[in-house]
Amino acid sequence: MSDLQVPLRLPPPGSRNRRAALYEQLRTAILTGRLPAGTRLPASRGLACQLSLSRSSVVAVYDQLLGEGYLEARTGSGTFVSPALQSPPPSKRAPARRPPLSPSARALARTAGPAAVDPAEIDLRPGRTDVSQFPLVTWRRLYSRALRRLANDQLDYQHPAGLPELRRAICGHVAAVRGLACSPEEIVVTNGAQQAFDLLARALVDPRRTRVVVEDPGYPGARGAFALAGAILRPVPVDDCGICVDAVPEDAAVILVTPSHQFPTGVCLSHERRHALIRLAERSGAVIIEDDYDSEFRFGTRPLDALRVIAPTSRVVYVGTFSKSLFPALRCGFIVAPEWLRPTLVSLRRASDWHGEVTTAATLAAFIGEGHLSRHIGRMQRAYSARRQALLDALEEHAGTWLRPLAQQAGVHLSAHLLPTLEAEPLARSARRSGVALDWLGRFALTQPSQDGFVFGYGLCTPEQIRAAIGRLAAHVT
Amino acid sequence: MSDLQVPLRLPPPGSRNRRAALYEQLRTAILTGRLPAGTRLPASRGLACQLSLSRSSVVAVYDQLLGEGYLEARTGSGTFVSPALQSPPPSKRAPARRPPLSPSARALARTAGPAAVDPAEIDLRPGRTDVSQFPLVTWRRLYSRALRRLANDQLDYQHPAGLPELRRAICGHVAAVRGLACSPEEIVVTNGAQQAFDLLARALVDPRRTRVVVEDPGYPGARGAFALAGAILRPVPVDDCGICVDAVPEDAAVILVTPSHQFPTGVCLSHERRHALIRLAERSGAVIIEDDYDSEFRFGTRPLDALRVIAPTSRVVYVGTFSKSLFPALRCGFIVAPEWLRPTLVSLRRASDWHGEVTTAATLAAFIGEGHLSRHIGRMQRAYSARRQALLDALEEHAGTWLRPLAQQAGVHLSAHLLPTLEAEPLARSARRSGVALDWLGRFALTQPSQDGFVFGYGLCTPEQIRAAIGRLAAHVT
Repeated sequence: MSDLQVPLRLPPPGSRNRRAALYEQLRTAILTGRLPAGTRLPASRGLACQLSLSRSSVVAVYDQLLGEGYLEARTGSGTFVSPALQSPPPSKRAPARRPPLSPSARALARTAGPAAVDPAEIDLRPGRTDVSQFPLVTWRRLYSRALRRLANDQLDYQHPAGLPELRRAICGHVAAVRGLACSPEEIVVTNGAQQAFDLLARALVDPRRTRVVVEDPGYPGARGAFALAGAILRPVPVDDCGICVDAVPEDAAVILVTPSHQFPTGVCLSHERRHALIRLAERSGAVIIEDDYDSEFRFGTRPLDALRVIAPTSRVVYVGTFSKSLFPALRCGFIVAPEWLRPTLVSLRRASDWHGEVTTAATLAAFIGEGHLSRHIGRMQRAYSARRQALLDALEEHAGTWLRPLAQQAGVHLSAHLLPTLEAEPLARSARRSGVALDWLGRFALTQPSQDGFVFGYGLCTPEQIRAAIGRLAAHVT
Repeated sequence: MSDLQVPLRLPPPGSRNRRAALYEQLRTAILTGRLPAGTRLPASRGLACQLSLSRSSVVAVYDQLLGEGYLEARTGSGTFVSPALQSPPPSKRAPARRPPLSPSARALARTAGPAAVDPAEIDLRPGRTDVSQFPLVTWRRLYSRALRRLANDQLDYQHPAGLPELRRAICGHVAAVRGLACSPEEIVVTNGAQQAFDLLARALVDPRRTRVVVEDPGYPGARGAFALAGAILRPVPVDDCGICVDAVPEDAAVILVTPSHQFPTGVCLSHERRHALIRLAERSGAVIIEDDYDSEFRFGTRPLDALRVIAPTSRVVYVGTFSKSLFPALRCGFIVAPEWLRPTLVSLRRASDWHGEVTTAATLAAFIGEGHLSRHIGRMQRAYSARRQALLDALEEHAGTWLRPLAQQAGVHLSAHLLPTLEAEPLARSARRSGVALDWLGRFALTQPSQDGFVFGYGLCTPEQIRAAIGRLAAHVT
């Protein structure tokens, strides 16, 4: 007889429920396959001795499991885990008759990219940021405090708009980094910017009727949420001055833009176009969604004002996120919403997942309120500034004749146009084989771009890695 | 000259960026209204001295803020916060022309209940649980460990199905509490059960076509998510044996049930009806969604097997939550999904909010894996058992002639039918005025219930409070 391979953790001798614990643990081990079918169980006498339990208790548990079919007795050779009740491998086959998937789910299945990011030796894809400098000790201290404070009264269901102290902290944050004045009553906290787009799409899109302008190339996450809601997407090209406002159709109800740092080109929407876009929206009655995902990081001059600052506040919905300034897995973003839209967003949040995890929200509120976020942004800005410069220098040195970097003054990625005689996608695939992951502009486009090129995220890599990566990319050209 | 009322926190003398910090902090204080319009700023010399900053730096900051319109100089009397740039009260008026809200958002706005729970002296509403016994110290220790481990590689975007270690832990949990065998590959982690219903509705409902059977009375959160997705709801009555399977129409694609502990009546779906429901679904091709929200807490005999255990696994979607066994503000639930449905749910989660907060997920995985959850459930079961008995005793003593408790063997609420000559809603409102919050069955009904009554949640209150509450309720009858 061998010892049981599953560690059994019973309450200490003298406690109640030791027999019940043995039953539950054996059954769980059988159901989850940790005790595979055919395993011989130890004799009741041996197990009783090992666990300091009476033999009659062990026998009673074995009998119950035998009666329920989890075990089977083979005469003369002992008690074995029954094969019948184990987890069958999940059936790959759909049942003969089942409900169809919804039309939007079917459309999504055709367009959805990979669910997870596959790792690379050097990762220059946009959207990745360096979390190694995140002030863990401070965060842990604030979390412990939040947990202590919350335990008594805030572990129950919360308001869908988000914790009031977090909404207050976000007001201070957007005032400081964007000069944006708003009140906590205008904010809806979301699980990252993605949920902001999802709520906005569900609030504003009448399926197969509502037209939504998107930048082309543009951010797939945002336009994906609108497509899922049934929007008719109207792609509008982007040039060195941002979205081409002259090409924006006036029949669109929603205009989705990244004015501070266009995704993926990295360019900034010019002063003139900002005002032209606002005039157009006022004329056509459209609402502008301003996705301001990483403009906390700035290089050079003072940035242009946010659309939310210069347009009538009822016309612009501002979306922010902490995925770039803190880390993506935090899943915290927010909407600064006009009065006419906010109650709808709150109801939708209530119906879609009620609200976010509350201790994390309280921790983030304290982290912002006590100045740790602005210090962290300052620290990362210096790091990103050095990386950006290393990237620009390496592009100049290794790719000066065939890549033209686009002007960019904010954020953690920049783009470069490729000589028309070269092809971006095959080069990116070659670079991937030599350990360098990077994206090409066309990957984010809905229509064939007039000029393709690369998107270089410099959030995750050291200056040395960036130089090495551009060198390897260049080796595939020359 | 008075001191500035806004605390300025500059980096220590000798640091870089002290002038920039002064600028940012003053501007933020003005934008957020902490320095109201008309406030006189201290003279530059005094502020410089107070902050150990050169006077020229303070003058430069004032000049910049004057140039940008945040401040205004009044000859002979000093420098004042300008009224022009402060946060205007958000306009209550929608712009003259703006996009319409989506049809589903308009429908939601008409049906949405209050966003937040209003507190009560004694709260007997269902869905509330006692968080005062939550093992904070253990949770904090596990969170700190999760944060340390995650920092290096897991703060980036994660897989939308949820952290693998949490999915593994959930498999062990459902095996232990429900005898449900599944693999981590079948699980999608969600932000509470609410997001599970939302994802399922978006996956399965073709707007204005798909028919969905819901229990009547039933859980408004689940049916609300399906209504939002455009489902045609088909309410089916509930009696003492659970949903009346004979009345379930065969044209429904989805059947949404709470077999272990019907919400709100608390009854258990009988053995015979379970099998009849499965036969019906197999015949009609419907999928069954089994909402098993609080059956961890059991009183008396071993519970009936979950539908997911006794039906073909491709026919049943199992939804679980930790809102009742831990606390609602954790926002953690899960779906055990058939193979044919799971990729769609993962894509939808990716498009709706990507994934949940990762440190909390890792903490929960350890909390379950190390046995703290089952210990907590055991502790709370003993507490809830005493409260349930106190409730039954008080009902017998104070309301034996006019309330009939319905049979219930699990969960943290039970219901009682009221004598037809009495009216539940007015009695509940009277009780509310005497400090006791409780719900009536009709509140959760879509059609007029044949018999009304009360729903008594005993999760939040002590036995003494429960006795007092029933006494006060009875005072309004006699």
